[in-house]
Formats: sequence, C-alpha cells, structure tokens
Amino acid sequence: MNSNHLLSTLVKIRSNKLFEFTVIAVIIGSALLIGAKTFDLSETTEIIVGWLDIAVTVFFLVEITVRFIADENKRTFFKDPWNLFDTLVVVISLIPVSQADTALVARLVRVFRVFRMVSIIPELRMLLNSLIKALPQLGYVLLLMFIIFYVYAAIGATLFTTINPELWGDVAVSMLTLFRVMTFEDWTDVMYETMTVYSLSWIYYLSFIFLTAFAFLNMVIGIVVNVMNEEHERILKEEAIEANEPTIASLQQQLTEIKELLNQRTH
Amino acid sequence: MNSNHLLSTLVKIRSNKLFEFTVIAVIIGSALLIGAKTFDLSETTEIIVGWLDIAVTVFFLVEITVRFIADENKRTFFKDPWNLFDTLVVVISLIPVSQADTALVARLVRVFRVFRMVSIIPELRMLLNSLIKALPQLGYVLLLMFIIFYVYAAIGATLFTTINPELWGDVAVSMLTLFRVMTFEDWTDVMYETMTVYSLSWIYYLSFIFLTAFAFLNMVIGIVVNVMNEEHERILKEEAIEANEPTIASLQQQLTEIKELLNQRTH
Amino acid sequence: MNSNHLLSTLVKIRSNKLFEFTVIAVIIGSALLIGAKTFDLSETTEIIVGWLDIAVTVFFLVEITVRFIADENKRTFFKDPWNLFDTLVVVISLIPVSQADTALVARLVRVFRVFRMVSIIPELRMLLNSLIKALPQLGYVLLLMFIIFYVYAAIGATLFTTINPELWGDVAVSMLTLFRVMTFEDWTDVMYETMTVYSLSWIYYLSFIFLTAFAFLNMVIGIVVNVMNEEHERILKEEAIEANEPTIASLQQQLTEIKELLNQRTH
Amino acid sequence: MNSNHLLSTLVKIRSNKLFEFTVIAVIIGSALLIGAKTFDLSETTEIIVGWLDIAVTVFFLVEITVRFIADENKRTFFKDPWNLFDTLVVVISLIPVSQADTALVARLVRVFRVFRMVSIIPELRMLLNSLIKALPQLGYVLLLMFIIFYVYAAIGATLFTTINPELWGDVAVSMLTLFRVMTFEDWTDVMYETMTVYSLSWIYYLSFIFLTAFAFLNMVIGIVVNVMNEEHERILKEEAIEANEPTIASLQQQLTEIKELLNQRTH
Repeated sequence: MNSNHLLSTLVKIRSNKLFEFTVIAVIIGSALLIGAKTFDLSETTEIIVGWLDIAVTVFFLVEITVRFIADENKRTFFKDPWNLFDTLVVVISLIPVSQADTALVARLVRVFRVFRMVSIIPELRMLLNSLIKALPQLGYVLLLMFIIFYVYAAIGATLFTTINPELWGDVAVSMLTLFRVMTFEDWTDVMYETMTVYSLSWIYYLSFIFLTAFAFLNMVIGIVVNVMNEEHERILKEEAIEANEPTIASLQQQLTEIKELLNQRTH
Repeated sequence: MNSNHLLSTLVKIRSNKLFEFTVIAVIIGSALLIGAKTFDLSETTEIIVGWLDIAVTVFFLVEITVRFIADENKRTFFKDPWNLFDTLVVVISLIPVSQADTALVARLVRVFRVFRMVSIIPELRMLLNSLIKALPQLGYVLLLMFIIFYVYAAIGATLFTTINPELWGDVAVSMLTLFRVMTFEDWTDVMYETMTVYSLSWIYYLSFIFLTAFAFLNMVIGIVVNVMNEEHERILKEEAIEANEPTIASLQQQLTEIKELLNQRTH
Repeated sequence: MNSNHLLSTLVKIRSNKLFEFTVIAVIIGSALLIGAKTFDLSETTEIIVGWLDIAVTVFFLVEITVRFIADENKRTFFKDPWNLFDTLVVVISLIPVSQADTALVARLVRVFRVFRMVSIIPELRMLLNSLIKALPQLGYVLLLMFIIFYVYAAIGATLFTTINPELWGDVAVSMLTLFRVMTFEDWTDVMYETMTVYSLSWIYYLSFIFLTAFAFLNMVIGIVVNVMNEEHERILKEEAIEANEPTIASLQQQLTEIKELLNQRTH
Repeated sequence: MNSNHLLSTLVKIRSNKLFEFTVIAVIIGSALLIGAKTFDLSETTEIIVGWLDIAVTVFFLVEITVRFIADENKRTFFKDPWNLFDTLVVVISLIPVSQADTALVARLVRVFRVFRMVSIIPELRMLLNSLIKALPQLGYVLLLMFIIFYVYAAIGATLFTTINPELWGDVAVSMLTLFRVMTFEDWTDVMYETMTVYSLSWIYYLSFIFLTAFAFLNMVIGIVVNVMNEEHERILKEEAIEANEPTIASLQQQLTEIKELLNQRTH
C-alpha cells in the first residue's frame, strides 16, 4: 500500500508541469555552468561552480530515478533511445574523477548534458527524429559520393603525393583534402601547386567539383521532392477526413441504382 | 470650426500623392546626405550638408506631426510599430549634440532614417512583415542549431583552448569560430592547427559541418514546403471563388432527389 | 521587277538552313579568333588572324544587310532588341581604328560578337528572355537588399573608417566590402580587424549575414514558387485542352435536365 | 551436351546470390588494396599486396568470362555500356607493366575498378543513369554559361593580361580564374589587384557574379520543376492504376444512357 502510494506520487510528480519546468531550468543552468567553466574564473567562483555541478548531478540522478520508478513498464524503459541516452549521461557523470588526466574526459561527458534539452522538449525530439528518418533515403547518394571521393583520393594520392605529402600523403589525407576542395576552401592554392607539375590537373579538380556538386544537388532535390510528396499525401488525407466528401465511385453506384430502377419499371 | 478645417486640410495633405512623393524624395535625399558625409568633403560642402541635414530633420518633424494630427485615433497611432519607429527616428535626431563624443552616435541614429524608406513604401513593408512572420516557424530549428553550436563550442573550448586561445579561449569565442567554420571561411587553417595536437580532430569539424549543413538544409526545405502549401491553399480558395463550381456533394444531393422522384412514382 | 526578284532571293537566303548554319559557324569562328588573339602569336599567324577578322566583319555586314532588306517591315526591324544589338555590334566594329589607344576598345567591341550566338539560337534567346522576365519580380527584394547594404555601409563607413580606410573609406567602398562579407570571402579577416577596436563589432557582421542570407533565401523561394505556379497553370491548361474532359458543371446540367424530364412526366 | 551443361552451370553461377556477394566483396577488397598502396608499406606487406592484386585481376577476368559465356546474346553483350566498362577495366589491367614509367598508368587504371561497385549494385546504376539523363535538359543553360564565361574571359584576357599574366594570360587561363571567382575563392584578391589599375573593374566582377549566379539559380530551379513534374505525373498514373476509379467521362456516359431510357419511355 505504501509502495503504491509512493508510485502514484512519483507518477504525479513526473507529469507535473512545475517538475518539467524545473528540469528544463536545471538543464539550462547546467549548460551555463559548462559554458562558465571555459572562462577564466576566480578561485571562489570555481568552488561555487564545483558545488553547483554536484547539485546538478544529484538532481539529474533523482530525476532519472523518479522517471524510471514511475514508468509502468520497466522493461521497455531502456528501449526508448532517449531514456537510454539520459541514463548514460547521468551514470557516466557519477564516476568519480580524482586524477587530472581523466578530468578532461569528465568535463566532456558533462557537455552532453546539454543534449538532454533535446530529449526533454518534445518539439526538438520530433525535429531530430525527422532528421534521422531522412538519412536512410540518402543512403545510396552518400555511397555514390563516397565512391567518387575514394576514386579521386586514390588518383590524387598516386599522382600528387610527391608534390605535397601533407595534402596527398595517403588515401585518407587525400579525402580530407578533397572535402576541403568541395567546400571551395583555398582550393585554388591546392590546384595551382599541382599544376606546376601536371599542368592539366585542373581537369581533375573541375571534374571533381562538377561531379560532387551535381550529386549533392541531386540529393537536395531528392529530399525536397520526398518531403513535398509526404506533405501532399498528408494534406490529401486530412482533406478526405475533414470534408468526408462523396467520391466519384459513390456517384457511379447511385447512377447504377437509378438505371436499375428505370429498367425495372420499363419491363 | 477652425480646428476642424485644419484637420481636414492635414488629412488631405497626408493622402496627397505629391506629399507622398516629396516624403520619399526627402528620404532618398537624406540617404544620399548620409552617404555623402562618409566621403572627404571640402569645408563649404560640409556646411551645405550640415544645413541640408537640419532641413531634413525639420521636414521629418513636420511630416510626422501632420500624420499624427491627421490620424483619427491618436491612441492607436503608436501601436503601429512603423509609426513608433518613424517617431523614434525623428525624436532622437532632435536631441542636440554639441560634444564630439556623442556626434558619432548622432550620425548613426541618422543612418536609421534610411529605413524609413521601408516604412513609407507599402510593398517593402509587406515584404518585411512576411519575412518577420516566417521567423517563428524557424524557432525550434534555430534552437536546435544553437544547442549544436553550444555543445561543440563547449567541447572546443575544453580541448583546444591551449592550442589557440584567440579562437578557442572561451565558449563565446568558440561559437564565433564555429560560425566561421560553418561559412567555410579558412576553416582548414583552424582544423590543421588543432590536428597538430589532436590528429583526430577532423572528426570534430566534419561532424559539425554535416550536422549544421543538414539542419540548415532541413530548415530551408521546411520554409519552402510551408510557402508552397500556403500558396497552394490560396490558389485553391481563389479557384473555388472564381469558378463557383458545383461540388461532387451537390451532384450527390441531386441524384438522391432523382431517386426519390423515381421511387415516389413507382409506388 | 528586278528589285522584287532580288528581294525574294534574299528572303530565300535568309530562311535557308545552310545560311543559318554558315552564320553560326562564322560566329563560332569569330569567337575562336577573339580567343586566339589573347595568346602570344607568331607574326605570320597574327597577319592571318587580322585577315580573318576583316573577313568576319565583312560577312557580318553582308548578313545584317541581307536580313534588313529581306525584312518585310523596315520600321519594326530595329524595334526588335536582338536586331538592334546585332546591328550595333556590326556597325561599331566597322569604325576604323588606327591609333593604338583605341585598339583596345575595338577589340572589346569584337568580343560582344560572341553574344550574337545568343541572338541567333532561338533556345538561348528564349532562355535569356525568361531570365530577364524574372527580374522585375525580384524588384522589391533587390531594393530591400540595397537598403540593408546601404544602411550597413553607412554605419561601417562611420565607425570603421579610421581602422582600415581601404575597406571602409566611404559608403561606396564599404558596400563593396559588405558584398565581400556576404560571399564569405575572408570575412573573418575584416571582422577580426575591427574587433580589435570595437570588440562587439561581431554583432554588426553576424546581423548583416543573417539579414542578407534571409532576404536572399526569401528571394530564391519566391522565384521557385512563382515558376512552380506558372508551370502548374500551364499543365492544367494543357490537360484541359488534351482531354477535353467533361466538367462537373456539365454533369450538373445533365442531372437538371433529367429531373425536368421526370417532373414533366409526373405532372 | 557437355557444352550445354557448362553453360547452364555458368548461368546458375551468375544468378547465384553468393557469387554476387563474392564479386562485391572482391571489389571492396580491391578498393582497400588500392587505398593501402597509397600508404608507406613494409616490404613484406608490399609483396602480399602485390599477390592479392594479381588474385583480384584473375578473379575479375574469371567473373567477366563467366558473365560473357552465360549471356544469351553475345552480340548485345558489349552494347550495354556497363559490360563494356567492366571488360575494359579488366582487359587494361591485364597488360603487363614492367617499366617504371607505365607503372603509374597501370595503378591509375586499377583505381577505376572501384567504379565497378557502381556497375554491380543496381541502385547505384539507376542513380547514375538518372544523373546522366538529367544532363541534356541542362544543355542550353550550360551553353549560355559557357558563352558568358568566354566573353568575360576574352575581356579579362584583353584588359588584365599585363596586370597578372598568371591569372589573365590568355582566354583559357582567364576562364579558370573566372571559375575561381564564381566559387568565391579569394576572388577579392583578384579584384583588388586589377582595381589598382582599372578602379572600375569591380563592375566586371560583380556583373559576372550576378550573371552566373542568376543563370545557375535558374538551372537549379529548372531541374527542381522538372523532377517535380515527373514525380507528379508518376503519382497521377499510379493513383489511376491503383484506384481504378471511374472518371467523370464515365459518369457522363451513364447520364446520357439514363436520359435515353427516359426519352424512350416518354415517346
């Protein structure tokens, strides 16, 4: 009875608006703390920041515990990637860090707390979900672009490696250089350098830029068309539900009935 | 009676085409004056410019007074943000500036007079309104992008602060550096510098570029789809009004009536 | 009779496919000549190029004369901007140039001959026409962008002129610098320089980038929506013509007739 | 009989799922080999890589032979561009290379093996086909852009050749420089240099940027509209097939029949 009472209290707390806003406020506070730590702070401030940090960690631990206990189905709790993410962020920040060399890692883990903002605000969660859902559609275009990158990087690493080993040393470095060329970042410097040896190497760069730009454009158009179609279908469905309009098929049905009536009476 | 006469005269003036064109001409003149002041001028020209400046200020004061008096409802006059903006620009430029240190501020305030061009031309006002109306739709995408920026800036300020304090000193400076990376402005210089210490830091930059590019693309597509839908609905409504075409539902109605007629006669 | 005979011959020549291809070939040849002149040539080649140049000029003169005489309506001949353009290019290249200082101008005029390619190929002419037709729609967005540029340039020329007169000397130079910032071309160099004096000047650059990017995006979307709508209407019209499909209104009409028939017989 | 038996075995092998995955695995392995060769390798590894390379070559030879023999129609085998490409890649890599100077060419040819990935995965092949199919639509826009580039390059090579022969030496180099300007890559450096001689040359650069940006925008919109229309028509057809919905024309037909029935009975 006591346990049941506790459970219902926790469920109430979880769905409490005030509780939700407190969580968001603590996340924002935690984000500000993380930002504050990157500034040069006086010793006093640093101690305060340290205590606040512990307070945030404890609050997050309490919050995740409340949400876990209040959950009806404990088994599926960790199947929700957002719950799993929240728990991981809380648990990892609980690991004590006394040594200086792991302090950096601990600070980095705390940075991920800011992403809890996404997990707590439903609109952001939906936005990220839709972003992730759009990825597989791009699968084959990304594979094609990777193949183009790989082939050009292999050619570049074969031909230009002696000209500038830092840019064309091996296939991995060459791919990074090609990504740089794709973003137009000082790409002419890279080109002019290789043109002193291979004067026709501008063909290599221009063909690469055209190929990747064209594939990229195709990808963007693909997404736009996809989103449009989904939107179009969604609107069509909504209209159908809203208006509950008779279809042409139903008219057909009625006309057939009328003809039958007429025919019956003729005979 | 006298006051009423004055009022109707002012209303007439306000809606006079000539008055409107004069206002636009003075605004253009004032814009040219502001531009002229940035050039090196001879002393005589500077004095002329000074007198013209006073003339423009006086004209604007008269114009706003006419519009205020001619307005039917004095209370709602300042509720229109454009009226408020116009009044503020005029009033602030009336504050006398004798000291040299505030002269700069006075000149900057005068620059905003050029924006009166937007407030006076209805098409520009509509354009700006539609731009502002589009902003809230972007709210959550902008929030998501801010979170991405903040997390990456916190990571950057933690890891790279010792490598180049000017670029990665604190979380604020890091966000500016990341905006630079997002615009592809010499971003490889920033990357190569950190790669000398952390050779895997290219993952940091590439993942950031992909994330922000993807979120940005999503934002653009979102706006396009939105605008398209609005346009689509506007066209549908227009067509419905224009054609006043009978709907399928009305055909349904008529068929039911015919069937009833037939049934009546059968029995 | 003789003159009439000549006229009909010229009309025949004008609409001759071979004549058309010769004109295109000569234009391409003339373009190659223009390109060839930019290379270092041996003296013999230069003499040949000179003679070919004269041949092209004479051919163009003959061609435009044929087209003018063969034209039915001499008055409207120069009302077509393409004819006017062709004539101007031919006439200007006839002006003798002996002095060295005007030789450069003469060469530049000849460059415009390449644009005759556009005037002779109907598809290119249509493409350019549609590009030019799209411009007025952009009118107000371009005006708004100009106002944003002007205001920011005036602010820049007021605040930053002492920091770097080459970039911020007057309002004209500032606008060029702002265009550079808009293309993200070494814009951080410009920003870091002014940030040494005004540490908050990043607000100036970031707000400018957001404003112009937003206005530009809006412009692009505006064009896309416009083109789509036109395309949509074109398709609707085509479908209507092709299918000659009965409308719902005609069904309505028929149903009313049936009801009348039924009513007649009832009474 | 024996030959027939062999043939049917080969046909079975060709359509075997395992065989297909083996081919993909070998292609990926061959791609990794090509990448590995760009790194500095120990002598032992290099020998292993050499042997693996021969193994891949032999496997590819066997695979293409199997596919050729198993093909029903030997005549049309090489009419498929993908088969032709595969055969060429295999045959060229068979040519023995002992001399050092052709070793580079041999390595480059092997790089093209990676493109076999595209020829073996149907989705990638379709993607590339659709990319290639989209090209002719762009024909005239690309021609227009080429003309714009050529005219500007001719003007640049005429005016600026003495300022910087490396950038504006002849019409070909100028076109490369203009492509650089179009990608905004340090374009202000190019502009500031020519502005020291021709202070109005910013008009040249700005007009070029506007023209090409506008033509490019037009091209992108053209593709988007095209893709949308195709998609739209595809959906319409699918809907028509799926629903097999009666058209308005069939309703018309039925109404006419009803009227005839009524008329028959009246008379």
